[in-house]
Amino acid sequence: MNQIIIIGKGPAGISAAIYLKRAGVDPIVIGKDLGALGDYKSSIENYYGFDTPIDGKKLIQDGIKQAFSLGVRILDDTVISIKDNGSHFLIITKNETLETKSVLLATGKTRENLTIPGYRKFRGKGISMCATCDGYFYRRKKIGIVGCGQYMKHELEYLSRMTKDITIFTHGNNLDEDLGFPIIDERIVEFGGTDKIGFVKTEKGTHEVDGLFIALGAPSSLEFANQLGLIVEKGNLLVNQEYQTNVPGIFAAGDIIGGKLQIAKAVYDGMEVADYIYKYLKDINKKMA
Amino acid sequence: MNQIIIIGKGPAGISAAIYLKRAGVDPIVIGKDLGALGDYKSSIENYYGFDTPIDGKKLIQDGIKQAFSLGVRILDDTVISIKDNGSHFLIITKNETLETKSVLLATGKTRENLTIPGYRKFRGKGISMCATCDGYFYRRKKIGIVGCGQYMKHELEYLSRMTKDITIFTHGNNLDEDLGFPIIDERIVEFGGTDKIGFVKTEKGTHEVDGLFIALGAPSSLEFANQLGLIVEKGNLLVNQEYQTNVPGIFAAGDIIGGKLQIAKAVYDGMEVADYIYKYLKDINKKMA
Repeated sequence: MNQIIIIGKGPAGISAAIYLKRAGVDPIVIGKDLGALGDYKSSIENYYGFDTPIDGKKLIQDGIKQAFSLGVRILDDTVISIKDNGSHFLIITKNETLETKSVLLATGKTRENLTIPGYRKFRGKGISMCATCDGYFYRRKKIGIVGCGQYMKHELEYLSRMTKDITIFTHGNNLDEDLGFPIIDERIVEFGGTDKIGFVKTEKGTHEVDGLFIALGAPSSLEFANQLGLIVEKGNLLVNQEYQTNVPGIFAAGDIIGGKLQIAKAVYDGMEVADYIYKYLKDINKKMA
Repeated sequence: MNQIIIIGKGPAGISAAIYLKRAGVDPIVIGKDLGALGDYKSSIENYYGFDTPIDGKKLIQDGIKQAFSLGVRILDDTVISIKDNGSHFLIITKNETLETKSVLLATGKTRENLTIPGYRKFRGKGISMCATCDGYFYRRKKIGIVGCGQYMKHELEYLSRMTKDITIFTHGNNLDEDLGFPIIDERIVEFGGTDKIGFVKTEKGTHEVDGLFIALGAPSSLEFANQLGLIVEKGNLLVNQEYQTNVPGIFAAGDIIGGKLQIAKAVYDGMEVADYIYKYLKDINKKMA
């Protein structure tokens, strides 16, 4: 059984991993993409300690190397879902299922980087990032799901309980699999509608929808929040002074708990939460002994 | 009139300077030595973002360069004293006197690095780091003062109001000046005594003292605290949630306010305090207008 699994390999997750490792706890870090910083076009000037501006992607990669050098296990994988088994948690990734006593959510915040026209306009107006959050509102409706990987299949499985009228949009990616629903593999050129989304326009046609679920990349923290019953306030995971969510054993740090969306703050969060995770584990391990 | 003078060019001071500069405020940073990190023999592994361990001295120097590149004015000077003039503050350095509306104390904590035998034993037992804190207890007593620069002279001026029986120990440094008190310019080899300091042994002789004041390098934050009437608790400057000391306009951040003595925490403090200084200045500038 693992002691702690950290989801996210940005500043908060890696900083926590470094402090935990040095405190004698063996964390596992799971992450796939480089997060918001990996997308940065511009360089970073306000994070202390670099005499020349540093590229966001390089900073993230150096942080990963730093933790790795200290002996932290880092899995290049996508977490699809988290299950609370009462005494412990199951982390279901694209490749495997891991058991752990505690979890640190440090997934960061997904920046709006889908550049398809209409995306911003209808985000929250029929376009959803979270099947378990909004799926219920589309019972027996006509919906679309955008994605092509494991995460899309996970969302599809959930949504197929709500409605049978689902179209899969791969946005130009190949998907040679029969999933029981029509697959449109052309690139999407526009999301359209009036006050809410009404259709998805691809290179070759227009497809009416009542709602659309985006399941590209990795699940957002909101998705995990919903799976676990975590309290969300104004789009941020609610934590107490010890970075604990309302579910004992589930911690959160970095951008997803709100506050300044700054590297210095995420790094500080990581250092602080490591202490509280350490104490939590010491406590439950004592009780189990 | 300057808006903000930051004393200390370590992680807290420089991080605050960077954030203030980017917020449109022109800070001046004053610092002389490299502080606790500059003394680090070992390298730093737990501050996020470096794929290989980084030398403490290099980190400090890179931080200074980073602020400088953004246009922050950095003075290589020692602050001797700070005076509260009611409407503003006077910063008296070795070289000049500056006026400012607000001050950020980010001097760090002096690590115990005097290696003379007996120093640790009698620290707090007759050996003091702060004339304005402890001078009063040595009225008409026989005291020594260790130092050779501007800071020593500042302490001497204060102590000479308490007693006329003062010996200056330069610890091997030259001091060709008549200061009105005997000067011993040999190296100190031992601090001796029984339950409290009783004598200073140099290469050529032994000198009895009732108390000894260390005035090497730069004044400690405690010294400034005493000059300004700041509240100190357990060796830390007391600040509120907005990093304000009990004297309006005087802020403090980093190691000197306590908490974890970690770079990540000092950098975070710097980012946070910058915001509060910005708001404070906006407020008082509005009142003045």
